[in-house]
Amino acid sequence: MPLNERFLAGLASADLKPEEILESVYVPHSHAWEFVSAFRQAQCQQNALADVNAGMRVLLKEGTGTIEDLSISYGGAGAVMVSAQKSCQRLIGRPWDELMLEEACRLLLEEVSLPGWAPGGKVEFKRTLVVSFFFKFYLEVLQELKKLAKFMPDSHHYPEIPDGFLSALEDFPITGPQGVQRYQSVDSHQSLQDPVGRPIVHLSGLKHATGEAIFCDDIPTMDRELFMVLVTSTRAHAKIISIDSSEALELPGVVDVITAEDFPGTNGAEDDKLMAVDEVLCVGHIICAVVAETNVQAKSAIEKIKITYEDIEPVIFTINDAIKHNSFLCPEKKLEQGNIEEAFEKVDQIVEGEVHVGGQEHFYMETQRVLVIPKAEDKELDIYVSTQDPSHVQKTVSSTLSIPINRITCHVKRVGGGFGGKVGRPAVFGAIAAVGAIKTGRPIRLVLDREDDMLITGGRHPLFGKYKVGFMNNGRIKALDIECFINGGCMLDDSEQVTEFLILKLENAYKIHNLRFRGRACMTNLPSNTAFRGFGFPQGTLITESCITAVAAKCGLLPEKIREKNMYKTVDKTIYKQAFSPETLIRCWNECLDKSSFHSRRMQVEEFNKKNYWKKKGIAIVPMKFSVGFAATSYHQAAALVHIYTDGSVLVTHGGNELGQGIHTKMLQVASRELKIPMSSMHICETSTATVPNTIATAASIGSDVNGRAVQNACQILLKRLEPIIKKNPEGTWEDWIEAAFEQRISLSATGYFRGYKAFMDWEKGEGDPFPYYVYGAACSEIEIDCLTGAHKKIRTDIIMDAGCSLNPAIDIGQVEGSFIQGMGLYTTEELKYSPEGVLYSRGPDEYKIPTITDIPEEFNVSLLPSSQTPLTIYSSKGLGESGMFLGSSVFFAITDAVAAARRERDIAEDFTVKSPATPEWIRMACADRFTEMIPRDDLRTFKPWSIPIA
Amino acid sequence: MPLNERFLAGLASADLKPEEILESVYVPHSHAWEFVSAFRQAQCQQNALADVNAGMRVLLKEGTGTIEDLSISYGGAGAVMVSAQKSCQRLIGRPWDELMLEEACRLLLEEVSLPGWAPGGKVEFKRTLVVSFFFKFYLEVLQELKKLAKFMPDSHHYPEIPDGFLSALEDFPITGPQGVQRYQSVDSHQSLQDPVGRPIVHLSGLKHATGEAIFCDDIPTMDRELFMVLVTSTRAHAKIISIDSSEALELPGVVDVITAEDFPGTNGAEDDKLMAVDEVLCVGHIICAVVAETNVQAKSAIEKIKITYEDIEPVIFTINDAIKHNSFLCPEKKLEQGNIEEAFEKVDQIVEGEVHVGGQEHFYMETQRVLVIPKAEDKELDIYVSTQDPSHVQKTVSSTLSIPINRITCHVKRVGGGFGGKVGRPAVFGAIAAVGAIKTGRPIRLVLDREDDMLITGGRHPLFGKYKVGFMNNGRIKALDIECFINGGCMLDDSEQVTEFLILKLENAYKIHNLRFRGRACMTNLPSNTAFRGFGFPQGTLITESCITAVAAKCGLLPEKIREKNMYKTVDKTIYKQAFSPETLIRCWNECLDKSSFHSRRMQVEEFNKKNYWKKKGIAIVPMKFSVGFAATSYHQAAALVHIYTDGSVLVTHGGNELGQGIHTKMLQVASRELKIPMSSMHICETSTATVPNTIATAASIGSDVNGRAVQNACQILLKRLEPIIKKNPEGTWEDWIEAAFEQRISLSATGYFRGYKAFMDWEKGEGDPFPYYVYGAACSEIEIDCLTGAHKKIRTDIIMDAGCSLNPAIDIGQVEGSFIQGMGLYTTEELKYSPEGVLYSRGPDEYKIPTITDIPEEFNVSLLPSSQTPLTIYSSKGLGESGMFLGSSVFFAITDAVAAARRERDIAEDFTVKSPATPEWIRMACADRFTEMIPRDDLRTFKPWSIPIA
Repeated sequence: MPLNERFLAGLASADLKPEEILESVYVPHSHAWEFVSAFRQAQCQQNALADVNAGMRVLLKEGTGTIEDLSISYGGAGAVMVSAQKSCQRLIGRPWDELMLEEACRLLLEEVSLPGWAPGGKVEFKRTLVVSFFFKFYLEVLQELKKLAKFMPDSHHYPEIPDGFLSALEDFPITGPQGVQRYQSVDSHQSLQDPVGRPIVHLSGLKHATGEAIFCDDIPTMDRELFMVLVTSTRAHAKIISIDSSEALELPGVVDVITAEDFPGTNGAEDDKLMAVDEVLCVGHIICAVVAETNVQAKSAIEKIKITYEDIEPVIFTINDAIKHNSFLCPEKKLEQGNIEEAFEKVDQIVEGEVHVGGQEHFYMETQRVLVIPKAEDKELDIYVSTQDPSHVQKTVSSTLSIPINRITCHVKRVGGGFGGKVGRPAVFGAIAAVGAIKTGRPIRLVLDREDDMLITGGRHPLFGKYKVGFMNNGRIKALDIECFINGGCMLDDSEQVTEFLILKLENAYKIHNLRFRGRACMTNLPSNTAFRGFGFPQGTLITESCITAVAAKCGLLPEKIREKNMYKTVDKTIYKQAFSPETLIRCWNECLDKSSFHSRRMQVEEFNKKNYWKKKGIAIVPMKFSVGFAATSYHQAAALVHIYTDGSVLVTHGGNELGQGIHTKMLQVASRELKIPMSSMHICETSTATVPNTIATAASIGSDVNGRAVQNACQILLKRLEPIIKKNPEGTWEDWIEAAFEQRISLSATGYFRGYKAFMDWEKGEGDPFPYYVYGAACSEIEIDCLTGAHKKIRTDIIMDAGCSLNPAIDIGQVEGSFIQGMGLYTTEELKYSPEGVLYSRGPDEYKIPTITDIPEEFNVSLLPSSQTPLTIYSSKGLGESGMFLGSSVFFAITDAVAAARRERDIAEDFTVKSPATPEWIRMACADRFTEMIPRDDLRTFKPWSIPIA
Repeated sequence: MPLNERFLAGLASADLKPEEILESVYVPHSHAWEFVSAFRQAQCQQNALADVNAGMRVLLKEGTGTIEDLSISYGGAGAVMVSAQKSCQRLIGRPWDELMLEEACRLLLEEVSLPGWAPGGKVEFKRTLVVSFFFKFYLEVLQELKKLAKFMPDSHHYPEIPDGFLSALEDFPITGPQGVQRYQSVDSHQSLQDPVGRPIVHLSGLKHATGEAIFCDDIPTMDRELFMVLVTSTRAHAKIISIDSSEALELPGVVDVITAEDFPGTNGAEDDKLMAVDEVLCVGHIICAVVAETNVQAKSAIEKIKITYEDIEPVIFTINDAIKHNSFLCPEKKLEQGNIEEAFEKVDQIVEGEVHVGGQEHFYMETQRVLVIPKAEDKELDIYVSTQDPSHVQKTVSSTLSIPINRITCHVKRVGGGFGGKVGRPAVFGAIAAVGAIKTGRPIRLVLDREDDMLITGGRHPLFGKYKVGFMNNGRIKALDIECFINGGCMLDDSEQVTEFLILKLENAYKIHNLRFRGRACMTNLPSNTAFRGFGFPQGTLITESCITAVAAKCGLLPEKIREKNMYKTVDKTIYKQAFSPETLIRCWNECLDKSSFHSRRMQVEEFNKKNYWKKKGIAIVPMKFSVGFAATSYHQAAALVHIYTDGSVLVTHGGNELGQGIHTKMLQVASRELKIPMSSMHICETSTATVPNTIATAASIGSDVNGRAVQNACQILLKRLEPIIKKNPEGTWEDWIEAAFEQRISLSATGYFRGYKAFMDWEKGEGDPFPYYVYGAACSEIEIDCLTGAHKKIRTDIIMDAGCSLNPAIDIGQVEGSFIQGMGLYTTEELKYSPEGVLYSRGPDEYKIPTITDIPEEFNVSLLPSSQTPLTIYSSKGLGESGMFLGSSVFFAITDAVAAARRERDIAEDFTVKSPATPEWIRMACADRFTEMIPRDDLRTFKPWSIPIA
């Protein structure tokens, strides 16, 4: 069976039948003068379906360069593989030259025509790739012909390839990353036993790697356990006319259907219901839930539940539409300093622009899941749940079931990634499962599959920002006016706070005297967006940094010069009048410049770009001032419970949750230092509301800090109690002392508490002290783009991060690396696509691309800034959970730097509309050239597009 | 099918076949001059198999009283029912008179002959019943004949029945108890919300009654759970030559056989191994364990395990043999005061005697059980276990598995009765199950059935005591020398401490100037005896009280006079030099005399006894001074953990275990008073080593007291923290304050601690302050015995108990009632029987009789002494867990009082050998008469008896 166009078109006869096996695939040698090549472009380099791929083969008449036979096939350019037979036919006999190329492109675009509404979208990009790939093939064959020509002095004269064009021929190789991690050794006087500051391996690290770590759904099946599957809305905005479960209830194994009517207590808040009542507000809105003996039975049953809807107007998905309909979740948040209007009048130049930042899916490895076990007595419930905030789950279940909190115990052993997505939402799943458990009297397991998790839970808020920046010709920015809108989805959730944090943090590292920052959260008919690592900062600050780039372009200066010129330099006050010293910020910046050899590499980049037309390099360095913590004092409290057992072994419990970030490892380091015994004598089993009550969400980068203080407090209390015993027998062992303490009736159990940092913000005055401290950092990234395909490779990233005195450099650098990579994903490949009806298309790893190992910069260096002190925090350490996220934007700005170089060369005006993520599609289309000019363009008004942009 | 002797003898033809159903039973009317009657005597009145029962029928020749036909059948007097056909045959034609009676008894004893070694024992008793029953029948028929004679003046003259004999005709009716519970109301000023001192219903009371309360084995089956069954020794003292499990391992479902070789760590202590290695020390010694998929599979498998033994000499079962072989578990304990030798020389009289007190099975409703769940990570284990001491289980598992304590969590929700039997032993079962869980990697459930529980675990120590008491003729005791021995079984366990406690408490309520108390624990080849409610006191003090009775008999005074004369009267020191005031003791005594109308009832009893020959009444009043607590300071520490959740609901955890004694109810009363909120806002979920570490066994009557102090401490800490908030908003609700506290970052979680009472004992000097305080009480019981059968009925008991200021009179009176009844069982019906090979016969409720509802005194009044203060304890309350046990002896002494009356009437010398329990067998045989004289007596040296006495 020839592997030809008929085969690839997916004919039935090409399908393997059940009784057949594939025996062999024969790949023939190519003939002399036959050239074969393949092309492919995907959202990312590996582990991704191609946007477009192509196979091309040409047989030339020996020694002449005339086409004797030609085959060109494309994948991704139609429902099935497309073979451009007609075009090929018409090119036979043509010589391999520019004219043929021109004609081929025309023919191919005609034959491989993709309608504007084609499923999968990216239509213009795909059209461009169709011809760009052929151009690559043209060059490849030409290069081969010219090599042959050297041995055949009499042969045909082939067209010349300009030197700058050769770069089009090289694909980016697939490489593994390497790099250096730099951190300060502990003081040589520090006791060898004291693990604080040492790179202790994450206590579950090996277990994560081997798969032995127990997560929520690894808990063995309970007796009489039922599975719950959620039924969600297929409409974006509609009245629920009826729910008919009768057919579903008759299916084997189906035990019950839970609706809002089954809630003994409250159904969430009035404007944030756990289950929809009467009205659905988005596709994916939870309407009811099926409980059945097995997961499979429950899943089949949801197909049989008939919900009739009546659509409601308006249906709003985009920020634009929300603004038009005045559809907001909360009032505008605003900060202002100086006199912006006056300042704009005095500046040399003004530039205005727009920034669009797409949302982001949390894509925690472990989806949302919960196991609720009713205990048959006193309405007690045991809840095992993957959450950053077990107390919130406990509280929500309490009010949903109308039973006191003291009957409910939430257990969290570890969470397979949270990133903010498991702060609020787990309570919804916990409460719904708990209703099922109480109604059926049986344990309920609710495990979202990836598709449902992505569909039902929101993620990072997409952002649309407009800026107006006034500056002097030397690059000094005098006035900056930013107005931004985030797409909050259908419920308030954290959107108001995200808006606040976004506005508060928008100035980043820059001292600009006249500022106006405004932000609003749009209400749309999409699943509610929520907390996500960085909490507004990674989106918002992209506007600020884009202003810098715009100013640089206008001034003809390099962006790093503009950054330096406008950066905080001395002790000063932020826009919200919080005083701080930028000393470490500047140190980070300078270290980063040094460590990355920035200036010499900037020159090398320029050199490279001069020499290469189809490949461009870009380099960028961004500074960061990131505020840590919640903006409310009461959210900084933390507690711990430490027991010393009679054998001397210690059990530590605290209010933080292990999200993979290593908090348990750090807590044992703290306990080990305080109690002066090795970590191996200690253990943390789980976080439980029965041991430490009223906990705060593990979030805002502050978990290890505040819980560390609580653990420290508990340990200090215990050690103080032991002091008289130790004094009496200084030569004794720990075990001796504990035995004596027990004999002498000294309590070996203590609660520890940390009252937390003061934090407040007066939005009326626009003043406050909302954050306990800042983390500073800087990152420099260099990338190279393929202007023909939009591919890019990350050449090198250098990060300098101010971790204070890191509690654990191994874990902290891991956090920096992890968040940087997640940020890089946000800014480059992670793209959520919605249908015009508000249905999320990207509901799994096939459609949604988080970075893989090959996306990590080839050289990836992370250094922790030495000798940084923060007297406020535990052992002067800093929380690094979120800040690295934004440093991923260095890759984004390096890409835009490269794109700008291409555009400058092609004489295309600077475009001050910034779009994140900088996908291959965006890069390719921004590097406009003869090929992008060739393609047919669509009139968007004439058809319904496959997807709509919501930012 | 006639229901005749053939039928009752159990012939095959009488058996119901599978295809048959019982259609009807026809009971014919008796004829004129035909008399039918049935008799039965069992260990207790109801719910017991009869020792002997009998059916008797006589047909007399009309108007003459000559026997025309006679049938007599006995149950219990042979392997099957015995029909005395020959005897009956030979009595036909005899007139119904004394001569016939005499002849009948002779014939019956000949025909219904029971060998001395007959299974079931009690041979002489049974022989006596054979004739006693016939005597009853004789009298019954005679009485009927005399009634008939009244209407037939011409009829035969029948023998007269003496007036005093009529009492033989009445059986004791089956009655339900009634009574009055008296306690002091709380002060009228006490807040209505404050539950302390009020009769709050046990929080699990209704659940206990309905069966909804969840005990260890009610925990649903775990995923992949296995069952474990223990294999125990069938030899009392032997070398283990080999263990062959091969056949067992091949059975379906059998997963593994666990032996001592599988223990990763230690196998218990050298002299108290968890599993036998090389040598077994008693029948029931654990050798290995089978784990299988189901309980049934595991049980079948143990039959297939082949153990070969080689017997070892000596084999010791009885205290006598132990003394002979000098086989003791620990050195003699001794206390002495005054000069005993000198004193004996000066007294008017001296009497010596012996006391034998049998052991007692704990017979907790819930047998020993444990569920061990290995958690797959870090060697963590969750252990659900029915224990009074989860920390001990935790520690034992830790050393058995050689893993630190901090990996092991023991959970106790509630225990279905402990009585001391779940202090030490649960650790053995927990550790063996844990070894199985670690070896198989699967959860293990180990649930002893009643037979295994009784076989494997020991109980109360049987005691043998010798006394010599010197006294004046007025009843003043001048010198008392007691030497006692307890049967400790094969391991030390608590035997040394039981000996100590026994000696310390032996003086009970009496001030005797010259004393010598000596005690030793015998090592025998029986399962190790252990802690049991009262811890030696109920056995030991029976000696002291028996001395009183002996002195009374010798002086011709009533025992209550001797008691009064020798009781502590003023502030004084105990034999171990601890000062105390007997004021409340005397108040209890006087109250008891008053409340029971003792003196008038004593006269009525005497009146009754004068009039009745075959029934006798007895009355007795005993005083009690019971010391509470452990004799070591470190055992009095206690801890608690109290959380207030943000909704104001409170979760209390403490170190005590709910054994049914209501500790959780009391703890919430304490928390409610301290926090000033209702108990309904509070909850206790379980006792867990993860919340309160290093707990002490809930035992020694002190659990509620010390844990109450810890809970109080935690609540006071919390309330102190809330004070500023309450002050600021005094009109606020509890919920307001808690919300404010959370906002103001005030920790709502606190550990509470109680350092415990000082307690020490210097055995060298014989001085100390071993107990924090005393509970005083007195009980008066009146009973009536049937001298012909040994049956007795409890007419009335009045108890006065000094509970201090009871925390909860409902629960405290429940404890007094419960322990009194358990004591009554010890002293009257609970009898453990051992084979000459050391095999426990009584392994279930059929053979071992704990009291049932009909054994409770017909009138049962319990009063708590009002206005008693104990400033030391929580709210001046006293622990009442154990003390009531001893008051059960008032029934024993009432029985011996009645028996003494019978013996006096029959002119039999006082017997100063006291045997407990006072079973029907003992009562009947002590009331020697013409029938006991008739029976053949055995020469014990000529055969091997069915059972041996071990006390």
